[in-house]
Amino acid sequence: MTPDEFRRHGHALIDWIADYVATVGDGPVSAAVAPGEIRALLPEHPPATPEPFEAVLADLDRVVVPGLTHWQHPSFFAYFPCNSSFPSVLGELASAGLGVNGMLWATSPAATELETLMLDWMQELLGLPERFRSTGPGGGVIQGTASEATLCALLAARERVTSGATNRAGVTGGLVVYTTAHAHSSVEKGCRIAGIGSDHLRHVDVDDTYAMRADALAAAIAADRAAGLTPMAVVASVGTTSSMAVDPVPAIAEVCEREGVWLHVDAAMAGIAALCPELRWVNAGLERADSFCTNPHKWMGVNFDCDLFWVADRGALIAALSILPEYLRTAQTGSVIDYRDWQLPLGRRFRALKLWFTLRADGVATPQAMIRRHLALTDELVGWVEAEPRFELAAPPRLNLVCLRHVDGDAATDAVIERANATREALFTRTVLDGRSVLRVCIGGAQTERHHVEAAWKLLTSV
Amino acid sequence: MTPDEFRRHGHALIDWIADYVATVGDGPVSAAVAPGEIRALLPEHPPATPEPFEAVLADLDRVVVPGLTHWQHPSFFAYFPCNSSFPSVLGELASAGLGVNGMLWATSPAATELETLMLDWMQELLGLPERFRSTGPGGGVIQGTASEATLCALLAARERVTSGATNRAGVTGGLVVYTTAHAHSSVEKGCRIAGIGSDHLRHVDVDDTYAMRADALAAAIAADRAAGLTPMAVVASVGTTSSMAVDPVPAIAEVCEREGVWLHVDAAMAGIAALCPELRWVNAGLERADSFCTNPHKWMGVNFDCDLFWVADRGALIAALSILPEYLRTAQTGSVIDYRDWQLPLGRRFRALKLWFTLRADGVATPQAMIRRHLALTDELVGWVEAEPRFELAAPPRLNLVCLRHVDGDAATDAVIERANATREALFTRTVLDGRSVLRVCIGGAQTERHHVEAAWKLLTSV
Repeated sequence: MTPDEFRRHGHALIDWIADYVATVGDGPVSAAVAPGEIRALLPEHPPATPEPFEAVLADLDRVVVPGLTHWQHPSFFAYFPCNSSFPSVLGELASAGLGVNGMLWATSPAATELETLMLDWMQELLGLPERFRSTGPGGGVIQGTASEATLCALLAARERVTSGATNRAGVTGGLVVYTTAHAHSSVEKGCRIAGIGSDHLRHVDVDDTYAMRADALAAAIAADRAAGLTPMAVVASVGTTSSMAVDPVPAIAEVCEREGVWLHVDAAMAGIAALCPELRWVNAGLERADSFCTNPHKWMGVNFDCDLFWVADRGALIAALSILPEYLRTAQTGSVIDYRDWQLPLGRRFRALKLWFTLRADGVATPQAMIRRHLALTDELVGWVEAEPRFELAAPPRLNLVCLRHVDGDAATDAVIERANATREALFTRTVLDGRSVLRVCIGGAQTERHHVEAAWKLLTSV
Repeated sequence: MTPDEFRRHGHALIDWIADYVATVGDGPVSAAVAPGEIRALLPEHPPATPEPFEAVLADLDRVVVPGLTHWQHPSFFAYFPCNSSFPSVLGELASAGLGVNGMLWATSPAATELETLMLDWMQELLGLPERFRSTGPGGGVIQGTASEATLCALLAARERVTSGATNRAGVTGGLVVYTTAHAHSSVEKGCRIAGIGSDHLRHVDVDDTYAMRADALAAAIAADRAAGLTPMAVVASVGTTSSMAVDPVPAIAEVCEREGVWLHVDAAMAGIAALCPELRWVNAGLERADSFCTNPHKWMGVNFDCDLFWVADRGALIAALSILPEYLRTAQTGSVIDYRDWQLPLGRRFRALKLWFTLRADGVATPQAMIRRHLALTDELVGWVEAEPRFELAAPPRLNLVCLRHVDGDAATDAVIERANATREALFTRTVLDGRSVLRVCIGGAQTERHHVEAAWKLLTSV
């Protein structure tokens, strides 16, 4: 593709995306395809010669779009939102066009310094504790996902509690991690990857809002110590996936501080709410957390992937993740931030651009207004659920998530979810709370307005 | 940003990228900035109100570009190439614009099925063994980096050798991994992360081309077995970072097969050479490897990140990485590929698009011609080095890498590297082989032509 062709096709693709975003709500939210159907529409073998780009673009419409679950659809109420704002799409484009690899400060100083600044900007915008600011001993980094952030936190905790021994000698058993059964699956996955093992992940008892009981945490830690084990880390959730439960971070932090246990707070979706000053209760207790993560790629509008991960002591993180072969040594090694030492892989994209573009071109008022709209819509939906005798709330509604169930039991709840999703007019996720089927309605789309929520509720009460 | 503004600014950014790529070779290859200088050019606090996008674009020129190391510069001879072709940039743009999350088949069937097809296309184009094709028990997935692929391979190996016990019980010591001192740093990092520990990573003896000695591997495994340890995996390198050494995979595979040890082959850069049928010697022995990775984001033109990771038995990989909370269960769970079970994180971008765009719009002939041009240029450079009495080859030249050193010793070699890089006319990486300083010249840029290599050589012989 020549530069002139790139201009022509690039303009066409930009227009195609603008059209896609403008019209995504007009079609179904999900695909009506059986496994293998998409592949069957495409050549089984690679092309022998180049094709016109127009043919590729046409196949986006013919093959790809009909095979997607449309996460940008205004009636996408499943999982968590994954908004992709226009400025962030342009930031991703700029990153791809520049094609630099910011693994070290020296391999693109601007990539590192802009990223550090963006994390400091976000510390301010979210009202996070000063300890996470890069101007002190802490600091932040962009990770791909909260899964990676949690794993990095576990590794830092593992090295801290063993004084760096496990990186050298390997894990030899006995390390214990604490969370709840409602924490994200990445906590268990991280424990497996890091060699801790699922058997050493304690699911601490929860209260009737599915939030961790700090007294039960203290008791679990004491029991493990008595058994000769080594409590290593607590992963507290601010906004669980299933029910948006919020663990009592201040009380948990007190236990962690007393016990010398690393506290990681996973606020992957809910943490972004702190962009609105009136919602800063989501930050409670963070002034004593060792690490924290939240995802602009969920509720803020920065396209996936963009997880922000802060640590209070970057030395612990770097001690866990740094490796320095000769070919990565530079004149600045040790005196600058080399982000390869803050993450699992070596190479890294220039992801700070999309956050920078979004904060400058859309400003913070845009996500603030969106979040407040979602909360108002959620309130309204809760009222409708409470007024409807066939349904009941399955958990205390919080932020933008409503968990409900059919009063006739699991089969009825499951049937509603299946029938509603089968219409492809809206999409919901099923989960299980206290062993019972639950329908989740997460209101988080950039284009989601009152009439979409109204239609969703009509759908749920009529199928 | 409104849709109309997105069109306008998007067109401008596309043109900006076309200009950047067209002119990147006219300026310096690296930045002349001290730590902190870039940040000092930017506001310390986030903007209170949105700014015109024109201001953002202007800052790309004012702040960002002067602070970059230009990986797309034709005189970038450092590390490995990181090419970003025009079609792949458009693929990344399409992925960001669609904003879907392909963590499960059901969360966007087209994202999963296109990715599986692309891995099968690449299996054909690279002439890889049939065992890696998704139509059998094996298959492939796009990872972000070779670091992640290697870690996934180690985790699959760990679970296989312990019959799945470590995921549950954690690592309890005694597992051993084998590689050479010349393998990528991600092997050691992976061993640390997975709880194996650096002390249990054996650096098997190498021959005088820095390639693993299969007899030494067999001896190391035997010694560990005799000591009651459990050999778990071998990571063989096809094209090491320092010197492009190629471990003898066929002989290593024989040892691994006999010993029941997982064999992962890391061909992050060199593996792409197999796009040229005459270079398929890089695939030797893969028909007995358990896993393999190579990076289209290095030598093929698909923008970072795009690592292809294949396994012969996807069951082993999934057993190592699968976790199934209720909110991720779908009607198709177990009967389709859910790529979340093939990688470390949960969420994932639609990266198959950039590979698909590149293979269709540029075709395979474009990277083939580029690779052949690089090899011819490398041959020529080797001739110049051999004819120059002040320099000598520090390792057998292979593919697109030349390792050389000054005959006057390390200080002279280091001085040449420092002075050459300080001109910012070209960029080289230093490494160490046999305890001696080495200057690496990796010829891999999409825009690198004979006159760039000639100028680089003149620079190295005149500073």
